[in-house]
Amino acid sequence: MSDIWIMRIGHRPERDKRVTTHVALSSRALGARGIYVDTYDEVLEQNIRSVAERFGGDYEIKTGVRWQDATRGFKGKVVHLTMYGERVDEALPKIPRDEDIMIIVGAEKVPREVYDRADFNVSVGNQPHSEIAALAIFLDRFTEGKALYSDRHGKLTVVPNERGKTVVENPDRRRMRAASHRRRLQAPGGRPLLHREGRGGGDRLPHRGGRHGPGGRRRLAA
Amino acid sequence: MSDIWIMRIGHRPERDKRVTTHVALSSRALGARGIYVDTYDEVLEQNIRSVAERFGGDYEIKTGVRWQDATRGFKGKVVHLTMYGERVDEALPKIPRDEDIMIIVGAEKVPREVYDRADFNVSVGNQPHSEIAALAIFLDRFTEGKALYSDRHGKLTVVPNERGKTVVENPDRRRMRAASHRRRLQAPGGRPLLHREGRGGGDRLPHRGGRHGPGGRRRLAA
Repeated sequence: MSDIWIMRIGHRPERDKRVTTHVALSSRALGARGIYVDTYDEVLEQNIRSVAERFGGDYEIKTGVRWQDATRGFKGKVVHLTMYGERVDEALPKIPRDEDIMIIVGAEKVPREVYDRADFNVSVGNQPHSEIAALAIFLDRFTEGKALYSDRHGKLTVVPNERGKTVVENPDRRRMRAASHRRRLQAPGGRPLLHREGRGGGDRLPHRGGRHGPGGRRRLAA
Repeated sequence: MSDIWIMRIGHRPERDKRVTTHVALSSRALGARGIYVDTYDEVLEQNIRSVAERFGGDYEIKTGVRWQDATRGFKGKVVHLTMYGERVDEALPKIPRDEDIMIIVGAEKVPREVYDRADFNVSVGNQPHSEIAALAIFLDRFTEGKALYSDRHGKLTVVPNERGKTVVENPDRRRMRAASHRRRLQAPGGRPLLHREGRGGGDRLPHRGGRHGPGGRRRLAA
């Protein structure tokens, strides 16, 4: 599979912080290599790096990059997601799989030049909805869902569970400062269990990272 | 296809207005019948109804409904989306297609009771990402993408276009007060064209409705 990059345009740090955080994290979960954001936003960068550092993989973020600069030297196809574009089911077979792609995800206003620069203007439905949803569906279909459960070799791994929550800490990446506390939570043998409950608890979900997102740092249930 | 309902929990009107708007609009675009939101939010209701009124369909919204009340009398299966749940590709074949489903979409905190009440706790990937993205992928897979380009018989219809923007106004649903202005934009024959450009313009995309969302009312390009 070729590399997938996201170019987020129209980002306003105060107003769009949560939406752009969702764009970045969902593209990471779906196998993208990284994101460019047109407006400089240090807090956003820190949050996304914090998630990548804990949950693994090599997702990159760079803010303060104009879409003209990101696309200028890009060797690959540029895909612009817009509700006005051609149908995703008709566009997908035309997009080469042996070249990198850069996906432009707009916020409120999208300049006319983006439609011109894009190799493909693609709609995910012709109803007004959400750039996060459109990007997620595009990536899920483009990658055939292959990235969703790939092992990122992070410090933390969530293991699918029909009823509760299973979070495994990968021992070789444990932080030493927390080792003594966590040892108490380890299973008798095998991989150390950071936290395992029969039922879902009311703790914060690590759905978003750091100060910037709505969740803040995850609290581990006792 | 059975009816699909969304139950959004943990909604805080000020903080979550944009994320919950995205949840509602993307579920509408993907074929859901409507959404319940636990916290009363009149502005959210107005915005979602405004989109449904312009773009068609019979999507419903009701806020101020506790999830316990929404699920109590519900005849169908309850699906809770959580990054801790079982894999979506393993869960999907188990979910009956001849019963209605209610999908619980949490914000930051999800009470333990939700995991118990749900017939299925389903993950869309095991990485922290976005409830909007998770819901979109779940619905796209569950409905096999059938709702994305269905005709909603709205006042406005967006027609897929590789380079520009094509928005068609359906004549029998035109608002009378705007008729004289719009008549100037009509094509010489056939269906009236509200707006057709060769290239995408810099106007606001109608991605979100009303005062509540980021976009506000759409301005039509001249």
